[in-house]
Amino acid sequence: MTVNVQELVIGILGGTGDQGRGLANRFARAGHRVIIGSRSEERARAAAQELAGSGGPVDGMTNADASRSADVVIAAIPWEGHAELLASLAAELAGKVVIDCVNPLGFDAKGAYPLPVPEGSAAQQAAAVLPDSTVVGAFHHVSAKLLLDAGVDTIDMDVLVLGDDREATDLVQALAARIPGVRGVYAGRLRNAGQVEALTANLVSVNRRYKAHAGLRVTDI
Amino acid sequence: MTVNVQELVIGILGGTGDQGRGLANRFARAGHRVIIGSRSEERARAAAQELAGSGGPVDGMTNADASRSADVVIAAIPWEGHAELLASLAAELAGKVVIDCVNPLGFDAKGAYPLPVPEGSAAQQAAAVLPDSTVVGAFHHVSAKLLLDAGVDTIDMDVLVLGDDREATDLVQALAARIPGVRGVYAGRLRNAGQVEALTANLVSVNRRYKAHAGLRVTDI
Repeated sequence: MTVNVQELVIGILGGTGDQGRGLANRFARAGHRVIIGSRSEERARAAAQELAGSGGPVDGMTNADASRSADVVIAAIPWEGHAELLASLAAELAGKVVIDCVNPLGFDAKGAYPLPVPEGSAAQQAAAVLPDSTVVGAFHHVSAKLLLDAGVDTIDMDVLVLGDDREATDLVQALAARIPGVRGVYAGRLRNAGQVEALTANLVSVNRRYKAHAGLRVTDI
Repeated sequence: MTVNVQELVIGILGGTGDQGRGLANRFARAGHRVIIGSRSEERARAAAQELAGSGGPVDGMTNADASRSADVVIAAIPWEGHAELLASLAAELAGKVVIDCVNPLGFDAKGAYPLPVPEGSAAQQAAAVLPDSTVVGAFHHVSAKLLLDAGVDTIDMDVLVLGDDREATDLVQALAARIPGVRGVYAGRLRNAGQVEALTANLVSVNRRYKAHAGLRVTDI
């Protein structure tokens, strides 16, 4: 498989949320055609409209149409209803690389904490309900605030990429690198995605303590 | 509490293992008095002998004597028998800061993966069996190989520090910084230790893929 990464059309399910709009913004800025998906086509179009002119063309569609029209699909959907929503799109997502960036977290007065996931991780749950797609975990730690900030040109962090298919993880590493400053780093198989998702709770703690938008860099590579 | 960190006597339970000897080496080099603990006093003394002359004095004792004699104790013991060994030292460790650096991992042909821990993490298990100690999680990701390598002067990584007691996490952050190149970074409460321990499995994957001794840096702080 030889892929011209820069020509990939990127669909973003739940693309009207902060994380989804932020990723849409960065990939549009990198020149990609981006399709924002939502349960509501109207809200998808409104979110796309907001990003118009930032780079590549941005369209808004239903999640099903976005899944059909995109080459690669990022699931930036809420944890609540995660399995059900993805399962409902299994036909449209068949044969595609699906990037799951969902962090199953709870919040209380003491901050964030990981929620238990029967499948081990959101990414493994996605793989379970999308047997005909290739699921990769990535983009868990990127701050929506930084992604959406027009004044931020480069983002100083590595995106940890998890998956069992080498072509797919290579592709997602290359996609991550389309965001200036970001490196895509292979960080293990899907069975090791749970702790990467859960680690977002630690970054929330870091952000509170240090008044930061913390990310991670992997050293010695 | 005002503590002269550099004057702390550091006990290392399981100090004859790679991680324990590596940490002993670095703290001795930083000028600390270090006490290597082991089930066998003889093996503890032999390990201490190997590190003699590297800096501060290094002694070998039983785990119980090391716990009694040290100001701060690092548990660098195997996951198997973790709860039982710590519980047997509860009296000696009472009133002290105990640093747990244990990673509950399994290994198979596909690499490393996190083992399920009923308490959520090794650190929480330690806290459960040591009700009169203050347990902090830290030093999970430091490579024993780098710690033991006499040719390595600085280690390029942050040590993530987890705990519910601010004085204790501040102390452990300061201790981490005694290793040149290392920063101690507060990374959340003990309930968020599990994913930091489990993330060691991802670093094992990174090390295999990139032929590295990977660590983490937290950005924007």
